[in-house]
Amino acid sequence: MDDEKIFRPVYWDFEQDCLKILDQRKLPHKEIWLEIKTLSQIEHAIDTLAVRGAPLLGVAAAYGIYIGIRNFRGSSKSFYKKLEDTIARIAVIRPTAVNLFVTLRRIQETTRIIKSSTLDKVKNNILEIGHRILHEEEECSFAISRNGADILDTSVRVLTHCNTGTLAAGGVGTALGIIYEAHRRGYVEEVFVDETRPLLQGSRLTAWELERWNIPYKIITDSSAAFLMAKEMVDVVIVGADRIVRNGDTANKIGTYSLAISASKHRIPFIVAAPSSTFDLSLLDGEKIKIEYRAQDEVLNFGGKRIAPKNARAYTPAFDITPSKYISAIVTERGVIEKPDIHRIAAHISGGAYATDVAEL
Amino acid sequence: MDDEKIFRPVYWDFEQDCLKILDQRKLPHKEIWLEIKTLSQIEHAIDTLAVRGAPLLGVAAAYGIYIGIRNFRGSSKSFYKKLEDTIARIAVIRPTAVNLFVTLRRIQETTRIIKSSTLDKVKNNILEIGHRILHEEEECSFAISRNGADILDTSVRVLTHCNTGTLAAGGVGTALGIIYEAHRRGYVEEVFVDETRPLLQGSRLTAWELERWNIPYKIITDSSAAFLMAKEMVDVVIVGADRIVRNGDTANKIGTYSLAISASKHRIPFIVAAPSSTFDLSLLDGEKIKIEYRAQDEVLNFGGKRIAPKNARAYTPAFDITPSKYISAIVTERGVIEKPDIHRIAAHISGGAYATDVAEL
Repeated sequence: MDDEKIFRPVYWDFEQDCLKILDQRKLPHKEIWLEIKTLSQIEHAIDTLAVRGAPLLGVAAAYGIYIGIRNFRGSSKSFYKKLEDTIARIAVIRPTAVNLFVTLRRIQETTRIIKSSTLDKVKNNILEIGHRILHEEEECSFAISRNGADILDTSVRVLTHCNTGTLAAGGVGTALGIIYEAHRRGYVEEVFVDETRPLLQGSRLTAWELERWNIPYKIITDSSAAFLMAKEMVDVVIVGADRIVRNGDTANKIGTYSLAISASKHRIPFIVAAPSSTFDLSLLDGEKIKIEYRAQDEVLNFGGKRIAPKNARAYTPAFDITPSKYISAIVTERGVIEKPDIHRIAAHISGGAYATDVAEL
Repeated sequence: MDDEKIFRPVYWDFEQDCLKILDQRKLPHKEIWLEIKTLSQIEHAIDTLAVRGAPLLGVAAAYGIYIGIRNFRGSSKSFYKKLEDTIARIAVIRPTAVNLFVTLRRIQETTRIIKSSTLDKVKNNILEIGHRILHEEEECSFAISRNGADILDTSVRVLTHCNTGTLAAGGVGTALGIIYEAHRRGYVEEVFVDETRPLLQGSRLTAWELERWNIPYKIITDSSAAFLMAKEMVDVVIVGADRIVRNGDTANKIGTYSLAISASKHRIPFIVAAPSSTFDLSLLDGEKIKIEYRAQDEVLNFGGKRIAPKNARAYTPAFDITPSKYISAIVTERGVIEKPDIHRIAAHISGGAYATDVAEL
C-alpha cells in the first residue's frame, strides 16, 4: 500500500515520552490526539472507546501497563506487586476482546522469565512488547488483507459491521483490510456499512476510513442488512472478531450474529477476519465467552441528549456470539480456515500465537 | 380499559375547526399539539412523521383531504378536479402503508356515489369519513388486542419493533395493543423494545407508551434482538404491519424481516397484528409492494448534528418485506390467521374491509 497512507492511531511518542492516541470518540469530525501519561488516562481512554478494536486494545494495554509502572521506585518484590495490580486494573475494563488478555499474559510471562534483570530492563522490556505487538498487528493486517482478498470474487458488493480497519487493528485492518486490498485489486463494486448502534463505529469510523481510501460505500441502519440480502445487493459479508474459541464460535460486535443468520438464510458467504492472536483455545465453545455490557446511557442518550423517557432502562450487550456453523471461513495472517471447526482450527493454530519476547535480552 | 387512559393522538377539534395532532417528533420529552389548518401543514406532518403509523395515516389522510377542499368555492366539476389533486398530493407522501390509499379510495368511491349532492354535503361527508375511520381503527385495536392476547401464553417475554400503540393506530394499538391487553391480564413478564433506527420510534414512542401503562420494558439496539433470542430471553415477537398482500407477505418497518428470520431460526412465534384494512388483496406477493425510501439525513444526521463524514451517503429503505412463511399468525380485529397463506387470508377477509360510507346520506 501507498506508504503515505499508513498512519498509526496509537503510537509511542519518544520525544514526549508518552502514548499518543487518535481520539476515536471525536471522529469523523475532529482529529484530536490524546497524550496519555498516566494509568488512569489509559483506563479512561479504553473504557470510553477513545482507543478500541480487539488488536489495538492489545497494543494499548501494553503501553498502558508500561505507563502504569515506569515511574516505580522500590524493591523488586513490590515492583512485581505493582505490576500485577496494574495488569488487574487494565484487565477488568473490557472483558470480551481476548487481545487485551493475550498482552497481559505476554507481559506476565516475559517479566517472569527476566526477573533476575534490573527493574529498568524489565520496564524497557514491557515498552518493547508494546512496540512489538503494534508492529505484529500491522504485519498481520497486511497478510490478512491479502489472504482474504485471494478468496473473493473479482466483482463483489461487500457488507461489513462495526469498524475493523486501521483504527481497530493498525496497518490496513482485518475485515476492512480485506476490503481495502480487494478494492486495490479492483474487486470492490460497493461496500455497505452497518452504522453499528449504539456507538456508530460504522457510520463514524468505517465511513471515515473508506473516504480516505476512496472506496465507494453506503451506510445502512443495522436492521436493514437482511433486506439488502433479500434484494440480492450483497455478495459477501466480512466482519472482524474479538475472540474466537476452540470450535470456531466467534464473539464480535453486537449485531454480528444477526448478520450471520441472515447471510446463512440467503446463502451469502460470511467471512470472519482476525489475527491468530484473537483465538482463545482455552475455551471450548462460545457459551463460555464473557460478554461485556456497556452503560445504559450509550443506548438511551445520544450526543449527550436523552432519546428515551427519563426512567427508561436498556439491555446493552456490546458483543454477541456467532456459532461457527454460520461462518464460511476465518481468515488469519496464516491463511484461511474454511468451514471452521475444532480440528481445522487446531491444525491452523499449530504452535504458539507469538514468539517469545526475551530473545534479545 | 380505564377510560381516562384513552387519548387520541389525532382528532378533529370542533371548536377550532381544525385537526389536532400530537407531534410525535417531539416525544417523549415534549407533548406538543399541532393545529393543522392547511393542506401543506398536513403534508408536512405526514412527511416528517409528526403523525405516523399505518392506521393513523389513514385517519390523517381523510382529515387532510377535508382540510384541502373545505374552503373550495366553484363549480362541481372543478371541485372534483380539486379533490383529485388533493388526493394525489397526499398519496405520494408515504407509498408503503396501504391505509393511506384505502382512505383515499374510500373518499373517491363515496364522493362518486354522492355526486348529485351539494358540495357542502360532499365536504361534510369527507370529514365524516375521517371521524369514522378513526373510530373504526380504535374499535379494531381493542378487538385485535383481545384476539392477540388470547393466543399468548400466560407468562411471556415479548419483543417488539417500532411503535404500534395508540400513537400508531388509535385505541390501544395493534401489536402494542396486544401487549397492553396481555399485561392487563397479567401475562407479561417483560417487553424488549427495539429502538428502531433511524427515527427511534421504539425508544421514543413505544417506551413512552409503556411508561404510561406501567408495563416493564427494556430498550435494546435493533441488532441485539437475535442475541436475546439465542439467550432464550424472548418467548414471542409481535409486530405491526403497513401492508399485507394476498399471500401473507408483509411490509413493515425496516428490521422486521431480520427479526422474522431470527425468530424462525430460534423457533420463536412471530406474530403480525394489524386491522383488516391493512390487507391489500390487489397484490399477489410482497415483491410488488412499493418500498418507501427516506431522506439520507435521517441516517447520516442525528438531532440536527452530522454523525457520518460530510460526503457519506446512505441507503435508506423505511420498510422491508417479511415473507409469510416466517409469520406464525396474523391477528386482526376479526380473529387469528394461523400460518397465513393465500387461502386462509382469502377466507379471513371475506367481503369488503369496510362498510359503505353513504348509508346516512
